[in-house]
Amino acid sequence: MAEPLFHRLVLIGIGHIGSSIARALHHAPGTVERLVICDASPAHLARAKELELGDEYVADPAEAVAGADGVILCTPVGSFAAIAEGIAPHLAPGCVLSDVGSTKQSVIRDVGPHVPEGVHFVPAHPLAGTEFSGPDAGLADLFKGRWCLISLPEGADEDAVEKIESLWAALGARTARMTAAHHDRVIAIVSHLPHLIAFTICGTADDLADETREEVLQFAASGFRDFTRIAASDPVMWRDIFINNKDALLEMFARFSEDAQSMARAVRWGDTGYIEDRINRSRKIRKSLIDIKQA
Amino acid sequence: MAEPLFHRLVLIGIGHIGSSIARALHHAPGTVERLVICDASPAHLARAKELELGDEYVADPAEAVAGADGVILCTPVGSFAAIAEGIAPHLAPGCVLSDVGSTKQSVIRDVGPHVPEGVHFVPAHPLAGTEFSGPDAGLADLFKGRWCLISLPEGADEDAVEKIESLWAALGARTARMTAAHHDRVIAIVSHLPHLIAFTICGTADDLADETREEVLQFAASGFRDFTRIAASDPVMWRDIFINNKDALLEMFARFSEDAQSMARAVRWGDTGYIEDRINRSRKIRKSLIDIKQA
Repeated sequence: MAEPLFHRLVLIGIGHIGSSIARALHHAPGTVERLVICDASPAHLARAKELELGDEYVADPAEAVAGADGVILCTPVGSFAAIAEGIAPHLAPGCVLSDVGSTKQSVIRDVGPHVPEGVHFVPAHPLAGTEFSGPDAGLADLFKGRWCLISLPEGADEDAVEKIESLWAALGARTARMTAAHHDRVIAIVSHLPHLIAFTICGTADDLADETREEVLQFAASGFRDFTRIAASDPVMWRDIFINNKDALLEMFARFSEDAQSMARAVRWGDTGYIEDRINRSRKIRKSLIDIKQA
Repeated sequence: MAEPLFHRLVLIGIGHIGSSIARALHHAPGTVERLVICDASPAHLARAKELELGDEYVADPAEAVAGADGVILCTPVGSFAAIAEGIAPHLAPGCVLSDVGSTKQSVIRDVGPHVPEGVHFVPAHPLAGTEFSGPDAGLADLFKGRWCLISLPEGADEDAVEKIESLWAALGARTARMTAAHHDRVIAIVSHLPHLIAFTICGTADDLADETREEVLQFAASGFRDFTRIAASDPVMWRDIFINNKDALLEMFARFSEDAQSMARAVRWGDTGYIEDRINRSRKIRKSLIDIKQA
């Protein structure tokens, strides 16, 4: 039998993404010899055990990472600095430390300084997820055909990077490398800004006078339903993402606001040519997504 | 056998909604004795015939409505005034004239003045639809469990209204009555504004520098994918809706803009409490939608 990629892999955080990794690993036997689940929430840890997601269940991150050759941070990005500081003295030489955070500059900023000599830091971000949270929300095929982006700090160890790339390949994902700054801009427009908008419009509807609000719910047509779906995502995770990708998110929001104001202006003044042109461009983007099988 | 609701029902426009009505009627035998399909596009009309959507296929609306006891306008709302003017002299006394337009004040304004004495005008709006267009996009179960809103002009004939309500019940929908002004506000927030936003953000992404744009497409995460889905909707139909529900749409857009600016400000200044609060409210709306089975 081939050597496993990791002898002892620790998932810190067994929410939607962590439990999806665990489930996907069950379908990739031989990839990991011993899977250790770690979560600060006793309820999450107990549920992970009931679901038999791993081989070992440990509440304390410092204890969990002892002797591990792989550690993946799967908690909200705002918690990374404290966790990295706490586990750093317990990481074995040669261990590969990775994450699944949706922001990459902040992760390199927060985790990087704590990584001990001889430990290999490989930040990663799988572009997958639903609006559901917690250990029960994991899906074995969540990463199938999706991208996992790798944003390397300076002087990253090539063998360690290839191990993380192989891990994501085993989970069904395709990998690509890009700088953290570039990653943060691309993800700001494709994921962070859409979430900010969805959270906002649900609040706007909620603020309407009482009678209308009930009808908003009752008569939610397809457009609004789609927005509420992504707006149902985890509050702490998204709060952390917004704060930690502030610059790119605010730049994309400014661009969007200008465009939305122009569209509103076209509606006010009946500029049908402008409106049709914008809608046609949107359709082309949708078509491109379908063509490259990302829709 | 029971008397049919309509002896000769004419669908003017055989796009997504028109062809869904035709298909749903095939599953509700006895509701309509003779279904007449009318469309200005020879290609759509030929395709409707190939799909055997109706009993008769007529290009000219004036010719199609002759002898009909029911007519439903299923074209973009911007075309209603001209169609109403053209068919008015050919409508038989007692005929019920209805529509499926997404704006109701504009429909009453545009169609109302053309309705001859003795013809009953019953504006309606089924809250259903996908991003697809044309006669092939029809779905027999599109209206199942969805709402159809009825907004009556002054002095509407109660028997005619009940006929239209029975028709939508036969198609699987629930009906509710509300004033046109109220309808237009509710639908502005649940449908029109989400579409305006989705069209806009796709354009914002398309305007990014070339290298990033390709990656935006390649790495489209779930948030953006959902937005492009609704942004793939028909340009002429949506142009007409925006222009014809301008006041309510611009008011809802102004409210949304204020809220989005406040969210951006919270992100800039790290106001985590505000961000979490807004996200939590969004989740509650989503939960309410699931509870009342509209999600």
